[in-house]
Amino acid sequence: MTIKNFSVEKKMKFYFAGSIRGAEDKEILEQNHELITYLNSIGTVLTEHVGDINISGTGQEIPDKQIHDRDMRWIEESNAVIANVSIASLGVGYEIRRCIELNKPTLCLYKCQSKKLSAMIAGSSVPVRSYENVSDAIEIIYEFLSGIK
Amino acid sequence: MTIKNFSVEKKMKFYFAGSIRGAEDKEILEQNHELITYLNSIGTVLTEHVGDINISGTGQEIPDKQIHDRDMRWIEESNAVIANVSIASLGVGYEIRRCIELNKPTLCLYKCQSKKLSAMIAGSSVPVRSYENVSDAIEIIYEFLSGIK
Repeated sequence: MTIKNFSVEKKMKFYFAGSIRGAEDKEILEQNHELITYLNSIGTVLTEHVGDINISGTGQEIPDKQIHDRDMRWIEESNAVIANVSIASLGVGYEIRRCIELNKPTLCLYKCQSKKLSAMIAGSSVPVRSYENVSDAIEIIYEFLSGIK
Repeated sequence: MTIKNFSVEKKMKFYFAGSIRGAEDKEILEQNHELITYLNSIGTVLTEHVGDINISGTGQEIPDKQIHDRDMRWIEESNAVIANVSIASLGVGYEIRRCIELNKPTLCLYKCQSKKLSAMIAGSSVPVRSYENVSDAIEIIYEFLSGIK
């Protein structure tokens, strides 16, 4: 794979969506952290805190409206959105719908062996791809980003 | 309370949003069932299956796209949306954002003692009210519906 060349061609901004407050599944949280590290190597991830294991559970210590408005702004600013939909999350569902409104290039990643995915996501216009491990997920992300003009 | 008079004045259609597939919390599921029964006494609930304990866990046996498109249509058709946001859910988050897009009268109900609510919901423009039990929640719904023109 020519990931390095890819990063030279485009300096993209990414919005990575994943469960924070509800994330009891440490495996998914660690995978998100690794995926964000990968995305940061080829562009800039606006939502780096999603992969921060220290803030999960309690969430971020800024007012909710500020978090909401900032995240809505970041979605607009981003070139692409990658959402890990392996964990049920009100916030991630909300963000995905916002992406559809904005016609933002969006990819949903879903860990195999997770529970059956919500029909609202699986039946929406956003592509959902299942992955088994991080390198698998990176291949999927790479393929998705290569298709964005 | 003059609930009966209320039902005579308006025959409203309601969209009730709540976690289905992810709902392991039977208490919330039973509360949803009771709230839907109440709403059906004053109008029509389009999403009656949300309170159906038999389909939770596995979800409905129709294709995801069909569920998605039907639910999006039902949101548009409804006069008001009541969402129970006590359980993390991609679908409910997605539906709430759709309500905001449509400027649909929407109320989020949140059970006290539930985990901290997602900042995307708590910080959005949709009102969130916490409740302790079903009769409490019914009072909140009644007050909310009375305010809809």
